[in-house]
Amino acid sequence: MVQLQDSHCDLLITGAGPAGLMAALWAARCGIHARIVDKRGTKIFNGQADGLQCRTLEIFDSFGFADRVWKESNHMLEICLWNPDETGRIRRTDRIPDTIPGISRFQQVVLHQGRIERFFLDSLKEYSHIKIERGVLPEQLEIDHSKAEDHHAYPIKAKIRHLDDDEATQAQNGTNVPDGLFRSSLAKDDTDDLIRKSRGKEGTTEVIHAKYMIGCDGAHSWTRRQLGFQMQGEQTDFIWGVLDIVPITNFPDIRMRCAIHSAKSGSIMIIPRENKLVRLYIQLTEVNSAGQQVDRSKITPEIILKAAQKIMSPYELAYDYCDWWTAYQIGQRVGNLFSCDDRVFLAGDAVHTHSPKAGQGMNVSMHDTYNLGWKIGLVVKGLAKRSILRTYQSERRRIAQDLIAFDHRFSRLFSGRPARDAADEAGISMAEFKDAFEKGNMFASGLAVDYGASILVAKPGDSGDQGDGTHVGSKANGTGAFVGKQELASNIKLGMRFPSFQVLNQSDARPWHFGHFLKSDGRFRIIVFAGNLQDEKQWKRLQGFGGSLAKPDSVIRRFTPTAKPIDSVIEILVIHSGPRQKVELLDLHEIFHPFDEKRGWDYEKVFVDDVSYHEGHGEAYKNYGVDKESGCVAIARPDQHVGWIGELEDVKDIDRYFSEVLIAQV
Amino acid sequence: MVQLQDSHCDLLITGAGPAGLMAALWAARCGIHARIVDKRGTKIFNGQADGLQCRTLEIFDSFGFADRVWKESNHMLEICLWNPDETGRIRRTDRIPDTIPGISRFQQVVLHQGRIERFFLDSLKEYSHIKIERGVLPEQLEIDHSKAEDHHAYPIKAKIRHLDDDEATQAQNGTNVPDGLFRSSLAKDDTDDLIRKSRGKEGTTEVIHAKYMIGCDGAHSWTRRQLGFQMQGEQTDFIWGVLDIVPITNFPDIRMRCAIHSAKSGSIMIIPRENKLVRLYIQLTEVNSAGQQVDRSKITPEIILKAAQKIMSPYELAYDYCDWWTAYQIGQRVGNLFSCDDRVFLAGDAVHTHSPKAGQGMNVSMHDTYNLGWKIGLVVKGLAKRSILRTYQSERRRIAQDLIAFDHRFSRLFSGRPARDAADEAGISMAEFKDAFEKGNMFASGLAVDYGASILVAKPGDSGDQGDGTHVGSKANGTGAFVGKQELASNIKLGMRFPSFQVLNQSDARPWHFGHFLKSDGRFRIIVFAGNLQDEKQWKRLQGFGGSLAKPDSVIRRFTPTAKPIDSVIEILVIHSGPRQKVELLDLHEIFHPFDEKRGWDYEKVFVDDVSYHEGHGEAYKNYGVDKESGCVAIARPDQHVGWIGELEDVKDIDRYFSEVLIAQV
Repeated sequence: MVQLQDSHCDLLITGAGPAGLMAALWAARCGIHARIVDKRGTKIFNGQADGLQCRTLEIFDSFGFADRVWKESNHMLEICLWNPDETGRIRRTDRIPDTIPGISRFQQVVLHQGRIERFFLDSLKEYSHIKIERGVLPEQLEIDHSKAEDHHAYPIKAKIRHLDDDEATQAQNGTNVPDGLFRSSLAKDDTDDLIRKSRGKEGTTEVIHAKYMIGCDGAHSWTRRQLGFQMQGEQTDFIWGVLDIVPITNFPDIRMRCAIHSAKSGSIMIIPRENKLVRLYIQLTEVNSAGQQVDRSKITPEIILKAAQKIMSPYELAYDYCDWWTAYQIGQRVGNLFSCDDRVFLAGDAVHTHSPKAGQGMNVSMHDTYNLGWKIGLVVKGLAKRSILRTYQSERRRIAQDLIAFDHRFSRLFSGRPARDAADEAGISMAEFKDAFEKGNMFASGLAVDYGASILVAKPGDSGDQGDGTHVGSKANGTGAFVGKQELASNIKLGMRFPSFQVLNQSDARPWHFGHFLKSDGRFRIIVFAGNLQDEKQWKRLQGFGGSLAKPDSVIRRFTPTAKPIDSVIEILVIHSGPRQKVELLDLHEIFHPFDEKRGWDYEKVFVDDVSYHEGHGEAYKNYGVDKESGCVAIARPDQHVGWIGELEDVKDIDRYFSEVLIAQV
Repeated sequence: MVQLQDSHCDLLITGAGPAGLMAALWAARCGIHARIVDKRGTKIFNGQADGLQCRTLEIFDSFGFADRVWKESNHMLEICLWNPDETGRIRRTDRIPDTIPGISRFQQVVLHQGRIERFFLDSLKEYSHIKIERGVLPEQLEIDHSKAEDHHAYPIKAKIRHLDDDEATQAQNGTNVPDGLFRSSLAKDDTDDLIRKSRGKEGTTEVIHAKYMIGCDGAHSWTRRQLGFQMQGEQTDFIWGVLDIVPITNFPDIRMRCAIHSAKSGSIMIIPRENKLVRLYIQLTEVNSAGQQVDRSKITPEIILKAAQKIMSPYELAYDYCDWWTAYQIGQRVGNLFSCDDRVFLAGDAVHTHSPKAGQGMNVSMHDTYNLGWKIGLVVKGLAKRSILRTYQSERRRIAQDLIAFDHRFSRLFSGRPARDAADEAGISMAEFKDAFEKGNMFASGLAVDYGASILVAKPGDSGDQGDGTHVGSKANGTGAFVGKQELASNIKLGMRFPSFQVLNQSDARPWHFGHFLKSDGRFRIIVFAGNLQDEKQWKRLQGFGGSLAKPDSVIRRFTPTAKPIDSVIEILVIHSGPRQKVELLDLHEIFHPFDEKRGWDYEKVFVDDVSYHEGHGEAYKNYGVDKESGCVAIARPDQHVGWIGELEDVKDIDRYFSEVLIAQV
């Protein structure tokens, strides 16, 4: 075994699934030196999680590739509930919207994970030299705890082994899930990735010294085992089969998302997919006819299909093409710790596992590292304080706990037998199921996430109670302390993601969803609702605010390295309440449209809430719940969560917020 | 000089600009064997035409890549007119929408030609093996007129020469327009095309025997010269300069499309572009201070900038980065013939040249071959009669004539000096200019195109009068003969493109613009407005219509090769008037949702005019002008132009239409 030289990097990511790729993408966008390794020799081509929440699409949009998902994916619009009638025959009893209307500019869609990984890879290539190193096995992990707080140290020492061909192939097939070849969506741009290993290094070992590390290495996380962290929770008895097929059926709602409860044969969830595929989640009875526990490894596609046919009877179901299939038992577990020394972190399946049917797994996993990546990026670059890293566990472990609670309730209702009548207490009430489904929709959209009080979220309450118990507050938080003025923007919730409504660019009248400008590039944003600029007093307030931000000791100047553009750490965006034609961009204070010697004025920072020529009126002020006359100011974190809200005079509070989070530059 | 073997192809295209690429794309989508050659050694990277009409985006969408243009392009929303006030100072006098609201689902955008060519190349690659053969010079053309009407013959013999490196490079620079290197938008996926020649063949000649040929080889068309065809029209005296710059200016509307008339210094057209670029069309005085005619070759960017600064005064204009520049005189000419024997055709600049400022050139050129490509494709495949080829000249030469008339009027108004007052008859009335601009918008959208009566358009009137004089009518056309019933669908105009409004897919409730389904794949479409299916009589009408189309001797069966899917020559699409939830797809006649043994029922052919969960109500019946109760039937050509309209009982007329156009198959 050849030993390569030691190497150094800012961030080491183990596991190149969605969570790992999201972490890598942040590293790319923040411009830090990251490596991402995966023991598998190839990227995946079929099966696996594929439902995408509204929030996930918003995040993809902030990285610039939501449109590719939107185009290729199947859009799910309606959920049909099918339940047994008094004769036991299944009937469509309800239709409900799959995504609650109005909560996001995107709706829930389905696209297989391989394509999503492709979009990550393309984006990584566009913004960095980061490449997935496949066929790489981590072997040993050491952490020098004494150096955890030393900004310049590399406290993590990871020994990795570059597998040779045979080993990498073995690792890839080392699963007990057989699968078919995914021809239909093996798109042309995937072929290069069929096998891409860390070429030239096969059969060698390497010691990587890293400042930070994220274990995104799945339910059996090697990283978690090295840290000695535990998964807490339980395994359920329910066994489910999954079929990805092109169905031949006379069931009328096969292209809708359906939840079918049969009278006695169990339940099915139908998830229509791209390329005429349909995914079926099929409940299998836990015991065979002899009353013995079913051996999961004995399950075949034929067994699953037969169970499906029974549930869907009298409708017929068959297929000629099966793309993939599997069977699983639901485990509902959360990790006890998400971080060691705020140097090594765990994310995704490594710290939470649950049922796949609600389409949460891949989403929540990506959101974990979406929460973490920019924090590491800013800390490594010396722009932000290390203390922000502590909010990762506080914010994300709480979400994982909420998710398990949701999944527990939802699985019970879905797996249970329908009640025959009101007196049938052992059965599940279909009314309760529908109610849970509708309420669950908000949770399942990913938009209900509400991070607790912390140095990053200036809101009232106890940071421990609002998170997972970790203390992440500051002097400024807590009772009677520094909090944002929620009442100024009733629909921009402190702790939640900044919502998006249509506005127009002041300089060219083009309509945009404002969310489009909250890009994931590592910048904080001060969003100025400038109000009614026709009013002389308001005009002066805005210009005064601009003047404060332009001062030599303002947050903008203090926390931005002198050599960098003035908008590179904190970007200021303005939305005034119109009318567009009464305002001239260049009349606004220069800080709102900075000048560049080579490129002239900046035309992409000032917007207006006005009617568009072709796409109606966004009614942004109304939808944001902001006063059209007096406006307000909000701070959005790099992940679009709202950190603070105040008035145009609250410059000192803005200063307090950033002073707690950022590091003064020279 | 080595002589390669003779080769054969269905279609030879000379010139790989937008017109040639559009022709190649049709060949790819129809599945015929085409070759496309270009004398230039590289694709272009900057400058040149770049305005894209609504109609062009609709066409791109029918090929599947409008979204890429929509994402990368600059969208133009508003036109600002600037005119001198009584003191001679320029003032903003009007704002008008750049695209008339409601006429299309797309608006006019700007993106440089190199990117557009990239999207064509990607689409070609996706659907065919057609590659651009660069560095190829045509040398000799012979046409065997005696074989023009022989379906199996290759009457065209073209000798071409594969240039060696030096020659190809020379050809590329053989223009008198100097240009800068286009760094900013030299996107990563372009690098392979910097130089791509017909490798391995350098320095050889080849004789290509072709069934059909299209000369898309520009204003100095070699093909046109071989045919001996003439350009008719005139050269104007106006000289214009063009600058593509990142402007540094305090002019407030620099990100709007602007038409500026100065009092005495001439006019400017401002076209804001992608990547902070702005294109300026600047009028240069025809004579120098000594009264001598300006030598166009002596013009420099500095001269053009100075002229611009004078026109835009008192606003300042400067730049650090100039991307490209040129100067031109306007020539307004149309070719006398567009086709020889309906075997060799001319398209694009080879048959029409005009001013670039109205953003028409590239669009009209692409529309030429968009009109022609499917006709050649269907004829080569033996699906359609050769007589349809005659409609190319009739339809497109008329458009070219209309374009020159439009351009003549527009150029005069734009180049002229503003009238000082109503008595100043030598000056141009700014009110007249605004009026022309607004009226011109419809023409400039590309949506006003209305093809005359012919075997492809069953409408009243004389085919010669409605076209360019070429006779393209049939026994069925003309007074009292077979015409469509325009009154059944007041906003689906016979001869014009089928408009698009939002409908929902019956099977999954997803909202789509109906235009999305009128794909450019060479198929005719029968679009059935099924009306109110709750009404028993109407239900029977629809099922009866389905039964007629399913008969063994129906147009669907007769004109589709037996071995091919039933929807491969003529596709049937249905839109009923709702409500969605009252109709079950599988209850409709099978011909409306054909069954496939491997893929089950077809879920992508039946739509409903109903409200969506997230995107409102398309009001398609209302917008199409079709009765919600009784509906109607329309035929759309493969290029989406409306060929016929009738009632659900008019099966015989449908038969007459297709019998005139298509060839019965076995």
